[in-house]
Amino acid sequence: MVSSTSTFLQSTNPATQTIIPEQFPIASKEEINHTVQSAQQAFETYKNCSGLEKATFLRTIADEIMALGDQLVEKVMEETALPQGRVVSERGRTCNQLRLFADLVEEGHWVDATIDEGQTDLRKMLLPLGPVAVFTASNFPLAFSTAGGDTASALAASCPVIVKAHPSHLGTNQLVANAIHSAAAKCHLPKGVFASINGGIKEGQQLVKHPGITAIGFTGSPKGGTAITYSAAQRVVPIPVYAEMGSINPIFLFPEKLEKEGTRVAQQVAQSLQLGAGQFCTKPGLLLLENHPSTDRFLADFKEILLSASQQTMLNGSIFQQFCDKRKYYMQDKQVVDRTPFRQDDKAWDVQPGFIRLSAKDFLSNKDYQEEIFGPFTIAVVYDHPDELQAICNDLQGQLTATIFSTKQEIRKLHTIVSTISTKVGRLIFNGVPTGVAVSSAMHHGGPFPASSNGKYTSVGTSAIQRFVRPICFQNWPDELLPEALKRANPLHIIRKVNGKMELV
Amino acid sequence: MVSSTSTFLQSTNPATQTIIPEQFPIASKEEINHTVQSAQQAFETYKNCSGLEKATFLRTIADEIMALGDQLVEKVMEETALPQGRVVSERGRTCNQLRLFADLVEEGHWVDATIDEGQTDLRKMLLPLGPVAVFTASNFPLAFSTAGGDTASALAASCPVIVKAHPSHLGTNQLVANAIHSAAAKCHLPKGVFASINGGIKEGQQLVKHPGITAIGFTGSPKGGTAITYSAAQRVVPIPVYAEMGSINPIFLFPEKLEKEGTRVAQQVAQSLQLGAGQFCTKPGLLLLENHPSTDRFLADFKEILLSASQQTMLNGSIFQQFCDKRKYYMQDKQVVDRTPFRQDDKAWDVQPGFIRLSAKDFLSNKDYQEEIFGPFTIAVVYDHPDELQAICNDLQGQLTATIFSTKQEIRKLHTIVSTISTKVGRLIFNGVPTGVAVSSAMHHGGPFPASSNGKYTSVGTSAIQRFVRPICFQNWPDELLPEALKRANPLHIIRKVNGKMELV
Repeated sequence: MVSSTSTFLQSTNPATQTIIPEQFPIASKEEINHTVQSAQQAFETYKNCSGLEKATFLRTIADEIMALGDQLVEKVMEETALPQGRVVSERGRTCNQLRLFADLVEEGHWVDATIDEGQTDLRKMLLPLGPVAVFTASNFPLAFSTAGGDTASALAASCPVIVKAHPSHLGTNQLVANAIHSAAAKCHLPKGVFASINGGIKEGQQLVKHPGITAIGFTGSPKGGTAITYSAAQRVVPIPVYAEMGSINPIFLFPEKLEKEGTRVAQQVAQSLQLGAGQFCTKPGLLLLENHPSTDRFLADFKEILLSASQQTMLNGSIFQQFCDKRKYYMQDKQVVDRTPFRQDDKAWDVQPGFIRLSAKDFLSNKDYQEEIFGPFTIAVVYDHPDELQAICNDLQGQLTATIFSTKQEIRKLHTIVSTISTKVGRLIFNGVPTGVAVSSAMHHGGPFPASSNGKYTSVGTSAIQRFVRPICFQNWPDELLPEALKRANPLHIIRKVNGKMELV
Repeated sequence: MVSSTSTFLQSTNPATQTIIPEQFPIASKEEINHTVQSAQQAFETYKNCSGLEKATFLRTIADEIMALGDQLVEKVMEETALPQGRVVSERGRTCNQLRLFADLVEEGHWVDATIDEGQTDLRKMLLPLGPVAVFTASNFPLAFSTAGGDTASALAASCPVIVKAHPSHLGTNQLVANAIHSAAAKCHLPKGVFASINGGIKEGQQLVKHPGITAIGFTGSPKGGTAITYSAAQRVVPIPVYAEMGSINPIFLFPEKLEKEGTRVAQQVAQSLQLGAGQFCTKPGLLLLENHPSTDRFLADFKEILLSASQQTMLNGSIFQQFCDKRKYYMQDKQVVDRTPFRQDDKAWDVQPGFIRLSAKDFLSNKDYQEEIFGPFTIAVVYDHPDELQAICNDLQGQLTATIFSTKQEIRKLHTIVSTISTKVGRLIFNGVPTGVAVSSAMHHGGPFPASSNGKYTSVGTSAIQRFVRPICFQNWPDELLPEALKRANPLHIIRKVNGKMELV
């Protein structure tokens, strides 16, 4: 929390609930102005960098992050209480992500070069918007933070980036920001190509409102994301906000499948629920099951697995408190017909996974059940009739994902259900869990509102670059002055659409 | 104008300023609800139509429009006072546009099928959003109206369309809507795939706020477009608004070019200014010229051409009045140092083209000069020093287009100017005029705010389809249940990106 008189922020060690001594000054109004101006100046140079120059920069950032070695891993662990294995693997994901975008911009096909020849010669490609502000996530201190997917995709698009560090991991941010600055220096890029600032809501709002900022990437709560989206829409010149705000990721579990492999599926779902102490935006927060003996067996297995699970430490005090409050609210609800009895001895910030069981009618009677609970908790809704399942599907808000566990025989009969949920999700999964978001070309991590502010864009995978560009068309423009991607001789040897036909190289 | 007690609307003949007898009932709240519900129901069928089925529908619409014959041409002329040649050519543009989208969806490549194979099999493609509301333009009664680019691209994307007819051409709307209904019936599509309603702001707002509407296309004034954009952002579930709101389309004219071909360029620009009585969103509303003898000669030629031009009838009384008011405001401005003396005998709704000459300093001192004047009027700004030109470029708002008239020698020295204006426009033109917006793959008709509400999208050309779709990713989905575009055997024979590489067919 930032008090109105503080001039600095400090992170807290979630394992010990002690404040870490290092102080991080809150950016002043003047500093934020100066930071954005530097980004604008850097844009004038950076937007003209070649794909190879940008690729080298992104790869150098990855190298510099790796060069931080154990110091980075230990700092992340201190600030997040995440286990070492997770931190090391998230560092790998972060560096691979940077290298994937490096490959993308080095190849150069992504600019969507489109050419119509003729008396009126039209040549269109994607060009960068300008400086981008990135609001980082609490739950991925590396992969969705300072050098995470938003930063990597914006830098790949030729947009300078200003990161607002997450107050939970200020030291991690500083180490990674230093790595990026070092990479920029090694690549002879202007310093303003990247900056990070520390602050609270006031400083964040100043960034959002600054005329020099041209787009925003955000990962966090619906409350925070919606506030930023409204602010951005009310600017003199509105700008796009790409806010990934999470969802409850319904999982549909059908009887034939549970008959055959109920115990294995229970293990899969329970494991997915507990990943990162349930603090994943794709955590399964809603299980939909038919009233059937196989469902009772599944839920008994599920309960047993969760009861025997170890406690996990949550990321910060605010997340912990909200989790406890929501869990308490649901546990006391008279409508709940079954529940996993949580241990009452939760140490501060340590939690046990659990779930409640509800009828379809009760689920539909209270919209609160559709709110994301950020933590290892889920709601199992048992319906008596397919019509109830359809009613739930009709009622569901926008989601990042939906998952179907069924046999192939069962899913063939689910045409209407699948048709309904496909209008509400970004990703449909068959017999798998929603956690585990591959960084690749075909990934789509973004769903209809309120899962994302703009379900047309993904925050994971190479398509994330499309958030920070727009098309510009050059008409009868002299060849020597065209961007390389559009020149008649195709000097970059990229795939282009010419006169309506795709031309490979 | 719609009075609060009217139950119907009528169009006016702009040539005679007489009300056309035919009455068009204003849609009631219940009718609008029913219309949206029909569209939602139709979506359940229409979204599963094949590319060929949609192509046949779009081509049949074009055929049905042509089958209206002279009746349609005469109705448009009656309601708009546009000359017959223009109406016939706009009808051709409209039908060609429908056929271009038909070809696009029949080929099927446009869905951007992207596949990552492996243990986690990911398959992503673009799928339709749902029912789309279209607010039509005053200035293109066919090409940007009932069966115009917004409707054609939304139908191509598998989205049902509800058009709010423009009050200036209600009869034209009805004829074209009938043609679309007839095409839907011939193609055995549900009636709800297309509807048009009549009404004013209240009815428009009801459409924008209806939960069944998933996106909006709009062509019109910044005031109208901004109001709709705000409304849509404040919905419980915000939806995208693609508002094309026009701009002043600066034209940069440099001395070497004017020395060589000044008279020809004056004719070109004057002709562009007068097209459609200046009621084009790409009308050149700002000429930027260096203080140089060639500029004086150019402006003398320009003045002479405009003085000898014939009067043209404007589209409706409201546009005419606003044009006269703005022109009067500019003509009386003490800062104006030269002007084309308008004839004072303008008949009602008939206008003469004209311009005023300003210094750079005076232009920069009054933001009003950056507001679009919808009609045959432009502002010629003469600057003394390149720094003044740079200052104007820095100050310019977002534009649909910018044009440079120069020799190749001159443009090579304009790196900084071009770099600045490229961040502010959707299309850059060399030695041509901004009017004449080709309907093709490489066109981009959309610029940074306030030219468009979302400069990432075009309202003209095949890419316009991208406004009405979003990506969905299928993970480990059974092959037989995948959309055809994503099936392993590629039965549609479309270009797909597989494991990061583009695969032709």
